[in-house]
Amino acid sequence: MDERYFSPDPAQRRIASDLYNRVKNLPLICPHGHVDPRLFSQPNYRFGTPVDLLIIPDHYIFRMLYSQGITLESLGIPTKTGTPVENDHRKIWQTVCDHWYLFRGTPTGVWLRDELQGVFGIGQKINSANAQAIYDAIADKLASSEFSPRQMFDQFNIEVLATTDAATDTLLHHETIRQSDWSGRVIPTFRPDAVVNIDTENWRANIDQLSAVSGIDVVNYSSYIAALEQRRAHFKNTGATATDHAAFSAYTGSLSDEEAHTIFTRALKGSASSDDAQRFTGHMLIEMARMSADDGLVMQLHIGSFRNHNPRIFQQFGRDMGADIPVTAEFTRNLKPLLDEWGNHPDLTIILFNLDETTYSRELAPLAGHYPALKLGPPWWFFDSLNGMRHYFDDVIETAGLYNTAGFNDDTRAYASIPARHDLWRRASADWLAGLVVRGIIDEEDSSAMVADMAYNLAKQAYRLGT
Amino acid sequence: MDERYFSPDPAQRRIASDLYNRVKNLPLICPHGHVDPRLFSQPNYRFGTPVDLLIIPDHYIFRMLYSQGITLESLGIPTKTGTPVENDHRKIWQTVCDHWYLFRGTPTGVWLRDELQGVFGIGQKINSANAQAIYDAIADKLASSEFSPRQMFDQFNIEVLATTDAATDTLLHHETIRQSDWSGRVIPTFRPDAVVNIDTENWRANIDQLSAVSGIDVVNYSSYIAALEQRRAHFKNTGATATDHAAFSAYTGSLSDEEAHTIFTRALKGSASSDDAQRFTGHMLIEMARMSADDGLVMQLHIGSFRNHNPRIFQQFGRDMGADIPVTAEFTRNLKPLLDEWGNHPDLTIILFNLDETTYSRELAPLAGHYPALKLGPPWWFFDSLNGMRHYFDDVIETAGLYNTAGFNDDTRAYASIPARHDLWRRASADWLAGLVVRGIIDEEDSSAMVADMAYNLAKQAYRLGT
Amino acid sequence: MDERYFSPDPAQRRIASDLYNRVKNLPLICPHGHVDPRLFSQPNYRFGTPVDLLIIPDHYIFRMLYSQGITLESLGIPTKTGTPVENDHRKIWQTVCDHWYLFRGTPTGVWLRDELQGVFGIGQKINSANAQAIYDAIADKLASSEFSPRQMFDQFNIEVLATTDAATDTLLHHETIRQSDWSGRVIPTFRPDAVVNIDTENWRANIDQLSAVSGIDVVNYSSYIAALEQRRAHFKNTGATATDHAAFSAYTGSLSDEEAHTIFTRALKGSASSDDAQRFTGHMLIEMARMSADDGLVMQLHIGSFRNHNPRIFQQFGRDMGADIPVTAEFTRNLKPLLDEWGNHPDLTIILFNLDETTYSRELAPLAGHYPALKLGPPWWFFDSLNGMRHYFDDVIETAGLYNTAGFNDDTRAYASIPARHDLWRRASADWLAGLVVRGIIDEEDSSAMVADMAYNLAKQAYRLGT
Repeated sequence: MDERYFSPDPAQRRIASDLYNRVKNLPLICPHGHVDPRLFSQPNYRFGTPVDLLIIPDHYIFRMLYSQGITLESLGIPTKTGTPVENDHRKIWQTVCDHWYLFRGTPTGVWLRDELQGVFGIGQKINSANAQAIYDAIADKLASSEFSPRQMFDQFNIEVLATTDAATDTLLHHETIRQSDWSGRVIPTFRPDAVVNIDTENWRANIDQLSAVSGIDVVNYSSYIAALEQRRAHFKNTGATATDHAAFSAYTGSLSDEEAHTIFTRALKGSASSDDAQRFTGHMLIEMARMSADDGLVMQLHIGSFRNHNPRIFQQFGRDMGADIPVTAEFTRNLKPLLDEWGNHPDLTIILFNLDETTYSRELAPLAGHYPALKLGPPWWFFDSLNGMRHYFDDVIETAGLYNTAGFNDDTRAYASIPARHDLWRRASADWLAGLVVRGIIDEEDSSAMVADMAYNLAKQAYRLGT
Repeated sequence: MDERYFSPDPAQRRIASDLYNRVKNLPLICPHGHVDPRLFSQPNYRFGTPVDLLIIPDHYIFRMLYSQGITLESLGIPTKTGTPVENDHRKIWQTVCDHWYLFRGTPTGVWLRDELQGVFGIGQKINSANAQAIYDAIADKLASSEFSPRQMFDQFNIEVLATTDAATDTLLHHETIRQSDWSGRVIPTFRPDAVVNIDTENWRANIDQLSAVSGIDVVNYSSYIAALEQRRAHFKNTGATATDHAAFSAYTGSLSDEEAHTIFTRALKGSASSDDAQRFTGHMLIEMARMSADDGLVMQLHIGSFRNHNPRIFQQFGRDMGADIPVTAEFTRNLKPLLDEWGNHPDLTIILFNLDETTYSRELAPLAGHYPALKLGPPWWFFDSLNGMRHYFDDVIETAGLYNTAGFNDDTRAYASIPARHDLWRRASADWLAGLVVRGIIDEEDSSAMVADMAYNLAKQAYRLGT
Repeated sequence: MDERYFSPDPAQRRIASDLYNRVKNLPLICPHGHVDPRLFSQPNYRFGTPVDLLIIPDHYIFRMLYSQGITLESLGIPTKTGTPVENDHRKIWQTVCDHWYLFRGTPTGVWLRDELQGVFGIGQKINSANAQAIYDAIADKLASSEFSPRQMFDQFNIEVLATTDAATDTLLHHETIRQSDWSGRVIPTFRPDAVVNIDTENWRANIDQLSAVSGIDVVNYSSYIAALEQRRAHFKNTGATATDHAAFSAYTGSLSDEEAHTIFTRALKGSASSDDAQRFTGHMLIEMARMSADDGLVMQLHIGSFRNHNPRIFQQFGRDMGADIPVTAEFTRNLKPLLDEWGNHPDLTIILFNLDETTYSRELAPLAGHYPALKLGPPWWFFDSLNGMRHYFDDVIETAGLYNTAGFNDDTRAYASIPARHDLWRRASADWLAGLVVRGIIDEEDSSAMVADMAYNLAKQAYRLGT
C-alpha cells in the first residue's frame, strides 16, 4: 500500500504523501549501525541462506519466537559451547513462517514485509503454506550477483554508512575498503566500551590488545589515556566522524588524576570494585567529551539497557540474544558534571539515546533545548517503530525544537533491512509534519524544509558527514 | 450510539464496526474479578435497592463524590464502628444524580450509562429531575425474577467467571454452586496475600485459620508451605485455574531455608520487622512460582498500589474505599531473581498487572517479549478505560506482540457492569485494529483473527480455561 | 487559519468550532502569572522597543537560540556584572528573525505568530527579509497610546490578573492600582519561597526584610510564623486569594515545635545543613496548608524544577535564563504527611503543578479524584503546549474528573502573549471535547457546559475569584 503508515484522514494523508514524495528518493545517511565491514571489504561477499541472512542474526525475530516457547536451538542459533543446533535451514524457515502471526502489528513484521517486497520483490504474505516457495525465491535472489553487498549499497542509494568498531579494532576491513576501487563510503565509529567499562568481561585482555594495536604500552592511567587518543586519531584518519559509548546509567563525575590512577591500577590488578567501575565510567565519559572537544569526533551516548538479563540464555548463547531489557534513565542530575564542563562548548556535539520514553519531554528536550553541545538521537531499539517515532516527535520537538535533534539512524546489523527502516522513518516524519500542517501549526514552506531535514540534512550535519 | 468509542475517521470507523460486529456476541471470559460467589450459590439471591446494587459497593463512584466534599456517610457507606449513616436510599440516589456531572468524560460515567441502557433498558441520561423516575425503573427491574444473578449470567452470555478468594476460604459457596443443578461455570482464584504478607492486619489470626481449613498445624515455615500447597490443591479441585498475588513492589528474592524459617518464626511471635515483611513477600513470590510450575495454576501478580492512603477514611470505613493510590513500579531489576529461576519454564504462566503506565513500553513489553513464562494482563483499575486501553495497545503490542498478552478481564465487583466493560474493551480493540488496517500495518485477515483473540481466545488460553 | 489547532477530521472539527465559538469571547481569568504590577501602577507605562517587549524577557526564545550557539550577549541579555552586551535592538531583532526557523513546531513559534496577528495586526511570517519591516510595524504600535498596559487589559478582556509577589513585597504597586481610578482587577499572590527555603541565596537578608515589612522582629521560629501570618493577612487585604510555593520535591513532613525552632535557629546562624533545608521546607508546606485552612487563601504548589542547571549561565546572567530543567516527581508518598493532616479539609484548596507528565495518570489524578482538598493545575511550563494539553486531558480527566481541575492559567511574564495563550487553551479544550463527542463519550449538553467550565468557570471557582 503506497500510503502505508499515514494517518487515515484524507487531508492529512494528501499532505503526507506530497511531503513523502519529496524525500523518498533522497540518499540514505546511515551514521550509526552495526553492519559488518567485511561485507564491503570482500568484493564477492555472499549472504548464505535466507535463514543466514534474515533469522540467525536478528534477535528481534528469535526473541519473540523464544517468548512463545520455541527454543533458540531449533532456530539454529549457535551455542557458545558448540553443542549442536538445528542446521536444516528450510526447516528453520518453516518454523518461523508457521509462527509468523506472532509478529502481527510489530515493527519486525512490517520491516520484513517491506524488505521482502522492496529488496526481493516478494509481495506475498508469509504463511505456513508458502514458506518453502518464499525460501526458494529469496535463495534465488541471494545467489545472483546483484545481491552482493556492494551492489546493494548502490541499489539502496546509501551515501554513507558508519559501522561500530571496538577501540582495539585494527580497522583492517575499513582500510581494505578505502584502498579498493569501490567508491562506497563506509566509515568506522570508535566504540571504546570494552576498554572503558572496567567490569567488562575480559577487560584485562582488551587492555593488552589496546597496547598491541596502539603501540603504547598501557601500564597506568596516563598511558591508557594516551593509547585511547592514539586510537581516536587512527579512527579519524580512517574516516570516522563519531564515537559511541554505552553505559547502564548516565552517571558522570570527574575523578581527580590521583583517583583515576588509583582505580585504573586496581583494575589492572583485577581488584576493582563495582563502585570503582561506575565511577570510572562516569569519569571517562567526561574525559571522552574532552577528547571530542579536541578532535571533533561527535560523541554518542546510549543509556539504560540491562544487558544479558537472562543468565540461562547468556551462558548458552552469549550476548545480543534478545535478552537486553530497558531500565529507567535519569539525565538532569547525572549529566550535570559533564555539562558543567562541556555543555556550553560551541564545537562539541553529544548525541543522546535512551530506552525510557519518559525522559523525552521531561529531561532530554529541555536539556537539548538549552545546552549548545547536546542533540537528541532518534528513538532507539524497541522504540524505532511507528509508535516510538510518534511519541518521540510529540514529546521532543515542542521543547527541543527540530534542530536540536540528529535525524534518523537505522542502528541495525540487518543490512538488507536498511531501506525499509529509513522508509518507515520518512513516512512517519511526513505524516507527523502533515499533522502539524492540517492543524495550522506550520505551513507548507516549513513542512517542506523540515521533511528534508528529517530525512537527510539533520543526520548529515549532526554527524559532520558533509563532504 | 452504535459506533460509540470508535475513531471519527469514516474509513477507520467502517472497519472498526465490521471487526466489532464479528465479536460483539462472543461469550464473555471473566478470568479475574471480585464478584461475590454467594450471588450464585443462593438461587434466589436479590440485589436490594438500586443504591445497594450501584452505589454502595462502587468505590469508583463514591470516591469521586467524596473528592468534591460529599461525605461517605451521606452516601450510605457503612462505618466500621457502626455509627449511623444515611439509609434513605432514594435520598442517596438523588444526591448521586444531583452530582452526576462530575462523571462527565470518565469511565464510570460511560459504564453506568451503558449498563443502564444495556441491562435495564434505560436510555435517559441521569439528572436531578429524572432521578426518582430512574430509581423506580431500576427498582422495578431488580424486583423481577429475570434479575437474579443466575439469570443474568445467561443473559450476559458469560462462559466462565472467576472470583477471588482468600487462601483460608473454605470455598463453600463454590462447592454449593458445583453441586447445584445450575450449569454456570463460576470458579475460585487462590489469593494468599493475607497469609503471605506478614505485615497484614490480623496475619497471626489468618495463620490460625489456615491451620484450621487445611488441617495442617502451621507451627513453622515447612508446615506453612505444606498448608499452602494443601489449599492450592483444594482450590484446583474446586475448579481454580489461577492464583493472584498483590504486592506493593515487584521485589523478588530467594531466602535460604534457614532465613525463611527464621523470619517466619519471628512473624509467628509478632516480632517481624517491616524489612522482614518485604523480604518474606519477595521470597514467597518465587515460592509461588515454583508451586505454579508444579500444579499448573496460572500466577497473577498485581503490583504498585498504596492501599488505604487516607488514614481518616481507613479508620472510619475500612479497606477498598477509593483511597488506594498508585506508585511507580520497577520490574527489570525486581523480577530478575524470580525470572532467573522460573522465567524460562515452558509450562508456567505469570501474568503481570500494574498501575504505572511508564512500565508498559520500557519494561513489561520487553520482558514479556522475551521470557516464555511471562504474559501481560490488560490495563488495571484506573487504566481500565478508553485512554488506558489505547495507551496499553500502543505501548505494549509493538514490542511484546499481541500473543504475549492475556486478553481482557473486568476485575470488578460490580456484577451488572460486566457486559458494559467487555463491550468497551471489544470496541476499543476493534478501533485500535482498524487503525492498524487503515495505516497498512496489518491486513483484514490479521485483523479478523486478532479481534477474536482479543475478545475471547487470549484470555481463555492464558488462564487455561479450555474445556 | 480560523480552525487552527483543531483535529483534521471534519466531524470533530465542526463540533470543535462550535464549542470554541461559545467561549472565545469570554473574559480571561488569569489567576497565576508573573506580569510586573508596575505595568498597571504607572498609567503611562511604555514597553520600550520590540526587543524589550518580546525578546529580552522571554527565556523561551533565547534558550532555543542559545542552544544553537547564539550567545546571550548578542541577544542583549544583561549580565550580572554589567559587562557590555549588544544594545542595537534592530540588530538583535535581525538575529532572531534570521534563526526563526528554529521555532518551527514549537509553542513559542505559534504564540508569537498569534500574538503578532492578534495584538499587532501583523499577518506576515517572520523571516530575514522582512525583519526590519516587522520591527517597524511593532515599534509603531508600541508608540501609540492604545498600547499602554491598562488599555491592553481592556482590549484583552481580562477579568482578573494575579501577579506573583515575594512575601517581603510591600505591595506598593498593588496599593497604587487599588487607589487609582482605573477599574482593572490586578491582585497579588503570596510567594514566600525566599523566606521559607532556608538554602535560598540571601535567605538571612530576606528574613531581615521580613521583619522590616511585617513590623515583627523575626528572632526565632515563633516570631517567624507570626510574621508570615501578618504578611498573608496583608496580601489578603490587598486582594490576594492565593499563595504559591515552589519546591524541588513534593516532600512534606511535620517537625515538632522543638525541631522547627532548632532548625530555624541554626538557619539564622547560617549553620543549617541541606538536610535541614529539605526538612524545613517539608514542614513549612504543612504549616502553609494550616494557614490556608485558616485564612482561605488557595495554596499552589509547583514541584520538580532543577533551577539554574547551568552554572556558567547562572554566574554570568543570573536566574530565569532558560536553564531550569525538570526532574521526576513523586506525590503519593511525599504528600501523605500533608494530606493526612489537611487532605480531608472541606474548605481548603491545594492546586498541584509539576513537570513530570508520568505523575498525571499515576498519582495526581487518583489523588485529586479522592482528596477533597486537592485540585490539579493545568500543564506547566514546557507542557503549556498543544501536546502538553492533549496529554493532560487524556491522562487526568478520566480518573480525576474535570471538576477536580483548576482550569487554565497562563503563568507568563510576557503580558502581550496572554490572549494567544488563553486562545490556544480554549481551542485545545474545544477540540478535546469534540473528540469525546464524536466518540459518543459525552453529548452536546455536556460538552457545552464543559467548554465554558474549562475556559472560565473552573479557574474562577478554584481560585475563589467570584465577586
